[in-house]
Amino acid sequence: LTSKLPHVGTTIFTKMTTLANAHQALNLSQGFPDFETDPRLVKLVTKAMEKGNNQYAPMIGAQALRDAIVKKYDQIYNVEVDATEQLTITSGGTQAIFTAIATVVKPEDEVIIFEPAYDCYAPTVELFGGKVVPVRLLAPDFRIDWDYVATLMNSKTRLIIINNPNNPTGKVLGKEELIKLGALLEGTSILLLSDEVYEHIVFDWASSQSVLEIPTLRERSFVVASFGKLLHTTGWKIGYCVAPPQLTHEFRKVHQFNVFSVNAPMQFAIAEYLEDISYIRELSSFFEGKRNLLRDGLKGSRFTILPCEGTYFLNINYSGISNEEEFEFACSLTTQHKIATIPLSAFYKEVTNQQVLRVCFAKKDETLANAIAILNQI
Amino acid sequence: LTSKLPHVGTTIFTKMTTLANAHQALNLSQGFPDFETDPRLVKLVTKAMEKGNNQYAPMIGAQALRDAIVKKYDQIYNVEVDATEQLTITSGGTQAIFTAIATVVKPEDEVIIFEPAYDCYAPTVELFGGKVVPVRLLAPDFRIDWDYVATLMNSKTRLIIINNPNNPTGKVLGKEELIKLGALLEGTSILLLSDEVYEHIVFDWASSQSVLEIPTLRERSFVVASFGKLLHTTGWKIGYCVAPPQLTHEFRKVHQFNVFSVNAPMQFAIAEYLEDISYIRELSSFFEGKRNLLRDGLKGSRFTILPCEGTYFLNINYSGISNEEEFEFACSLTTQHKIATIPLSAFYKEVTNQQVLRVCFAKKDETLANAIAILNQI
Ligand SMILES: CSCCC(=O)C(=O)O
Ligand SMILES: CSCCC(=O)C(=O)O
Repeated sequence: LTSKLPHVGTTIFTKMTTLANAHQALNLSQGFPDFETDPRLVKLVTKAMEKGNNQYAPMIGAQALRDAIVKKYDQIYNVEVDATEQLTITSGGTQAIFTAIATVVKPEDEVIIFEPAYDCYAPTVELFGGKVVPVRLLAPDFRIDWDYVATLMNSKTRLIIINNPNNPTGKVLGKEELIKLGALLEGTSILLLSDEVYEHIVFDWASSQSVLEIPTLRERSFVVASFGKLLHTTGWKIGYCVAPPQLTHEFRKVHQFNVFSVNAPMQFAIAEYLEDISYIRELSSFFEGKRNLLRDGLKGSRFTILPCEGTYFLNINYSGISNEEEFEFACSLTTQHKIATIPLSAFYKEVTNQQVLRVCFAKKDETLANAIAILNQI
Repeated sequence: LTSKLPHVGTTIFTKMTTLANAHQALNLSQGFPDFETDPRLVKLVTKAMEKGNNQYAPMIGAQALRDAIVKKYDQIYNVEVDATEQLTITSGGTQAIFTAIATVVKPEDEVIIFEPAYDCYAPTVELFGGKVVPVRLLAPDFRIDWDYVATLMNSKTRLIIINNPNNPTGKVLGKEELIKLGALLEGTSILLLSDEVYEHIVFDWASSQSVLEIPTLRERSFVVASFGKLLHTTGWKIGYCVAPPQLTHEFRKVHQFNVFSVNAPMQFAIAEYLEDISYIRELSSFFEGKRNLLRDGLKGSRFTILPCEGTYFLNINYSGISNEEEFEFACSLTTQHKIATIPLSAFYKEVTNQQVLRVCFAKKDETLANAIAILNQI
């Protein structure tokens, strides 16, 4: 068998979590909370199962959950989404991203991504015969030069992928940046995939942004989001994709043969839980407290702290400590200092060495205190 | 946007279930049980959530669940499966099938399928640029002519897909047939995808079969199975794929970017539930009772009953009643007689009219009694 993905290894998240477990290290690598899911949400899952919601959910997702999402877009963004024509429930954000790429990328198509990029975009594009055109952004500011992006756009460009707020950089593209992107795409047939799984985890000046707010982007975008990050349930694997009716129609053709439908009890439970969306509005300040705790705790350390406007992640630069390459350094921190992080280079096609590690702060305050103690001793 | 799957519509299962609901018809179309999931299993999900198993499961699946599956293969088939190197937990059988095809099918590859075929195989092959080579089997015996299959095999043949027990025909390929297939593939580099989601629902003379029992097949097969059909939980979406280490290695490259991982609480609950596998051994007689009920109840009707050796499905021929084309006839049964079934033609690339309907008997005895009453009046 000739591999279809010869250059692909196991994801960095699996690698680092495995290493962390093997060495009983504090695991601030893979992005998941170590605190409890709301017991009320757990009870709603039990209720859904006891009521008999254990058979196939509708292929496009449970009506109640789609209605809850429509209400969210209305109340948070004042944007109208059609529950029947524009919304599909997926097995987490990852399956939505994979399916959107599968839906539109054909052999020879070009797809522009911004690096550092979440690690699933490029191999998925390649699996469908597409060519990845990476735009490399570098620490500390990771700014996108839209004029440069314009020079990369041509008749083969099928798709641009953005991730906002950005994992791993923690950067938020504000409305002005999105308007620039809209202007760039206006009049072209280039589509957009906007990975917005951290949309409700934004700090300081930033507010939740969705490309659905920008008409030129809205008409050409697959918008992906996830309840894992919203409800501290990354293991439940419920996400969704919003797209215009024509794109949704094609998306569902692939979705129905990829997973057919998605875990039913969790869908019903989340729908009921989100009847009151005030929860969503409080999420940012909850995580901002955690970011502040970690950031302030590291002020006296030998690490330099990079800006973080959103997501679960704070990036720290260790050039004051070591010249080592990032992956090696991250491994030795794990094995010797018992703290696991993610090397930033994992998010670049060609390895960079910016001496930056990504640290997940979606953790109990106690875990963060332990992490701070360790990192201050390095 | 040019569609990548121009000929694909909404699956027949979604179509008929939607029609059934709209007309408040008895729904014997899409294959799912209408009876309760074991409350003990539901309690185990609650327990898993309360214990905090709500974050990402390992990418390859929870260790406990993989161990339970290994034990099953050992105890039922006396076959050894390696939990680390050969087994990946998936979001239902569908995602395992999709991922296996994605892993091996390249543009121009040929894939042999047997029609009637479950509806996801062909479009998935086409999505990856493969060419479907259908072998058409016809009612009433749906026999495979292996000599004919041999004439279709050539250097472009990448994969053969079988489904055993077969949905929709209810036919079981016994060990002799599988040995013939093994002999056919010996010495070639053709791979096999064996969809075994109904493996523990077999009747009369038949016993559970897995291609893993046949060495020449075992070394080249993706074996797909599902807990939805095993535990009456089609809406939980937990399945798996067994394959040799090298194929598993490639499978996981795609799996990790398709869904990354699978619902965690359900995995832990199923693992605990399967500590006693005597449950599995009793499943066939449970469903055999239901098949008998439906079959015997229709003996006086104007339908001809086709043989059924396994699965959820009994096929009935209506040529004594009408000349109508299957889809039309199935629709009018739904709207006028309030009973939904699946037209057999939905499982062929080019529509046939064998005047056969597939009836799902994975239903409460009471539901089957109602179905019998309706069908006897037609
Ligand atoms: C799918 S595992 C990775 C989780 C995550 O979003 C991250 O750590 O970046
Ligand atoms: C994925 S919905 C279809 C369920 C099923 O296996 C069938 O009805 O054949």
